[in-house]
Amino acid sequence: MSDLTHIDQHGHAHMVDVSAKESSLRSAYASARIITRPDVIARIQQAEIKKGDVLATARIAGIMAAKRTSDLIPLCHPLALSKVSVDFVLSEQEIHITTLCRLRGQTGVEMEALTAASVAALTIYDMCKAVDPAMVISDIRLQEKQGGKSGHWLRSGESDHV
Amino acid sequence: MSDLTHIDQHGHAHMVDVSAKESSLRSAYASARIITRPDVIARIQQAEIKKGDVLATARIAGIMAAKRTSDLIPLCHPLALSKVSVDFVLSEQEIHITTLCRLRGQTGVEMEALTAASVAALTIYDMCKAVDPAMVISDIRLQEKQGGKSGHWLRSGESDHV
Amino acid sequence: MSDLTHIDQHGHAHMVDVSAKESSLRSAYASARIITRPDVIARIQQAEIKKGDVLATARIAGIMAAKRTSDLIPLCHPLALSKVSVDFVLSEQEIHITTLCRLRGQTGVEMEALTAASVAALTIYDMCKAVDPAMVISDIRLQEKQGGKSGHWLRSGESDHV
Amino acid sequence: MSDLTHIDQHGHAHMVDVSAKESSLRSAYASARIITRPDVIARIQQAEIKKGDVLATARIAGIMAAKRTSDLIPLCHPLALSKVSVDFVLSEQEIHITTLCRLRGQTGVEMEALTAASVAALTIYDMCKAVDPAMVISDIRLQEKQGGKSGHWLRSGESDHV
Amino acid sequence: MSDLTHIDQHGHAHMVDVSAKESSLRSAYASARIITRPDVIARIQQAEIKKGDVLATARIAGIMAAKRTSDLIPLCHPLALSKVSVDFVLSEQEIHITTLCRLRGQTGVEMEALTAASVAALTIYDMCKAVDPAMVISDIRLQEKQGGKSGHWLRSGESDHV
Amino acid sequence: MSDLTHIDQHGHAHMVDVSAKESSLRSAYASARIITRPDVIARIQQAEIKKGDVLATARIAGIMAAKRTSDLIPLCHPLALSKVSVDFVLSEQEIHITTLCRLRGQTGVEMEALTAASVAALTIYDMCKAVDPAMVISDIRLQEKQGGKSGHWLRSGESDHV
Repeated sequence: MSDLTHIDQHGHAHMVDVSAKESSLRSAYASARIITRPDVIARIQQAEIKKGDVLATARIAGIMAAKRTSDLIPLCHPLALSKVSVDFVLSEQEIHITTLCRLRGQTGVEMEALTAASVAALTIYDMCKAVDPAMVISDIRLQEKQGGKSGHWLRSGESDHV
Repeated sequence: MSDLTHIDQHGHAHMVDVSAKESSLRSAYASARIITRPDVIARIQQAEIKKGDVLATARIAGIMAAKRTSDLIPLCHPLALSKVSVDFVLSEQEIHITTLCRLRGQTGVEMEALTAASVAALTIYDMCKAVDPAMVISDIRLQEKQGGKSGHWLRSGESDHV
Repeated sequence: MSDLTHIDQHGHAHMVDVSAKESSLRSAYASARIITRPDVIARIQQAEIKKGDVLATARIAGIMAAKRTSDLIPLCHPLALSKVSVDFVLSEQEIHITTLCRLRGQTGVEMEALTAASVAALTIYDMCKAVDPAMVISDIRLQEKQGGKSGHWLRSGESDHV
Repeated sequence: MSDLTHIDQHGHAHMVDVSAKESSLRSAYASARIITRPDVIARIQQAEIKKGDVLATARIAGIMAAKRTSDLIPLCHPLALSKVSVDFVLSEQEIHITTLCRLRGQTGVEMEALTAASVAALTIYDMCKAVDPAMVISDIRLQEKQGGKSGHWLRSGESDHV
Repeated sequence: MSDLTHIDQHGHAHMVDVSAKESSLRSAYASARIITRPDVIARIQQAEIKKGDVLATARIAGIMAAKRTSDLIPLCHPLALSKVSVDFVLSEQEIHITTLCRLRGQTGVEMEALTAASVAALTIYDMCKAVDPAMVISDIRLQEKQGGKSGHWLRSGESDHV
Repeated sequence: MSDLTHIDQHGHAHMVDVSAKESSLRSAYASARIITRPDVIARIQQAEIKKGDVLATARIAGIMAAKRTSDLIPLCHPLALSKVSVDFVLSEQEIHITTLCRLRGQTGVEMEALTAASVAALTIYDMCKAVDPAMVISDIRLQEKQGGKSGHWLRSGESDHV
């Protein structure tokens, strides 16, 4: 049974040593959902139709946040991301967010993909909170990761980023 | 019916003018949940018992993220927060996070409280992902806000920050 | 004849003391131009028509940069901006950028408006540099400022932000 | 005819994938001009003579801004710059700024060189705005780039960084 | 006997509530020393004489760090500093650094003055480490503070910032 | 006799070119001391015993600061640190801080280790300043470095990080 890797033998937090890990191409896919009222979805769609910036703003916020992950999450390694994308699908009562991060490096990009999804969701909340403060952000989760020693990991029973 | 406040009449994003709003004491309470396996909760609790830093690290990450909200969320105003706290309750399969932000100012602190909850949750995910990459962060939501022109708002049917 | 305010009597840089200045409502309007080929303007317009994100991305970059001005410009005071907007007008061979910043405070927001214009321009350059690396950013300048002891200042012979 | 690389097939912004690009030594030279009155140039020169910090401050601001380019420009990749320099030449009515950025990596450093030039110019504006708010920052442009698949690019008809 | 103010009754870190504190004019003076070999001091002095940037760079680094204190020190409140200065006195074997921070606000600026002194010292170390890696930074301390409920505090037996 | 490497032949600061240096595994160990009253040490120890967050907060602050070194120290290169740790030993009147940074790269990590030690010390000062504003931070120094062309360097007469 593995231990918590970010806690040393004295119970203290540290940034784990990845200097001996091999560099490989690594990708991570994450997702999140924002649940709101149908009329809020309609407003966002209308804003989109008339060239509105709701989702464009959230996309940029998510991409920029991915680049700042190691500044936000204390024990994350600084990484030179080589690709970030953030996408949205709107349904009647929710917005589904999917993110992809990739790099060639010594450690995985799961936190970057999850941070992008979280900050994109928070940005949508911010832009719509005047009309629905009760909006809920849910199901922020890793969907799949590739590369590294642990290899391919796919959330069991599902994968929605294809 | 109100519009999306952060989108102007041309459908473009802007940072809304709060210069004419009155300064008042404002508080916001938010919460989030992280769902994992009972053995992961047990490890976190053990780490806590032996002075471990899992929750301490997540708490600091949440507090620091609250202060950086306007750097992360594109249309948020920079705010001089006067108080931030982040708390955790562990149950069998989940960690419940509650946050409080407060300031005397011209605009509310909902985004700061939600950002603190999100980043605290992401930090726990980061520290435990080696043992449970399937962990899910859910129910990031505003619980209550006080102050400002819109006054008191309480999520209907519940309030868990007392 | 006034001296360089940010240099003390020994010739050293310092952040000037504004603690005794009165708080007042202050606005600043700045502008910039990006000169490129007509076919690049056409691509940006097409991207706009199909909901493209070129100008939306530049607008968000400009707004976020305004909030980080005191982090970039060594002797700028940290300011709690109450409003930022960034707008674009496309003509045959150039994009004209105008910005507005506002706050109630002890010091002006010229640098914030100029920084927003500069970073919005750099972002457009970044997104179009593969098709036109020779693009030039020009005429970054203050157009007007209001508020504070020095009062109203309007660039002589012109004002293009109305 | 190439498309706007930072916009995907749906018209959305994304950070393009550079993970398959080869690493090579890349350099970029950029420049900018600040146009002001002769008496302002004289003051800056005097400050220089008596060990003043105007240009030293602008140089440091430009170097630090180069390192933060990916934090400011939404779709820029984070880069580990291996060299940055910022230089100034004063003439009767203007300051000419030249910058150089270099790294061994998978993507070019044009944006870093342009950002350094822009922020150095904004810093000079900030330090001199009390004596000349009408100062104009102009001609921010790439002069030359080396390395990468696209190879050598030199602004036609000129090169002022030799 | 007072408790550690940043630790709540459960032993957890939090950012203390200053929203009920009165706003007053507050100043803090801090200092630090860097001890090195006489030949290193001589080089720095020579660099100064020929317009060198060692101390100018350290001064700017210290001023910029003061503005970022709440980003670095987890439980510090974000503050709108109204003045920062950093000064140096060179003697045979050491550089003495003094800093001053000021603002009108609800909490003191001791941490800002200490952070400015620390980062100015680290910057000098960085610029001179190739010639003397054994340099030591010592005696980072508060010299005096004014304003706030606790009033005037002066380090007993000394004060070197006059 | 070597020159100040960060100052060019004209006496100006620049970020030195490391693009031709070989990549190697590099480590740096630094330390710092905080001197205070025995009763303050006792409070910190008690807080530790009851799961208090004083040292955990300082440790996280130090780790995060190491990652931001190139943002704080003007001429430092941005580095992708592969390991950071911060440790504390309490004695009667002081806290001894030791830090370790490591990466495989083209330039050393001394500044990262020293910055981690400094910011950890400042964080302890912040959390204890209400009970002892006279606390002094001293002896911030490099203890040892490994890797790179200059090879192994050990502070003469001592090494306390074993």
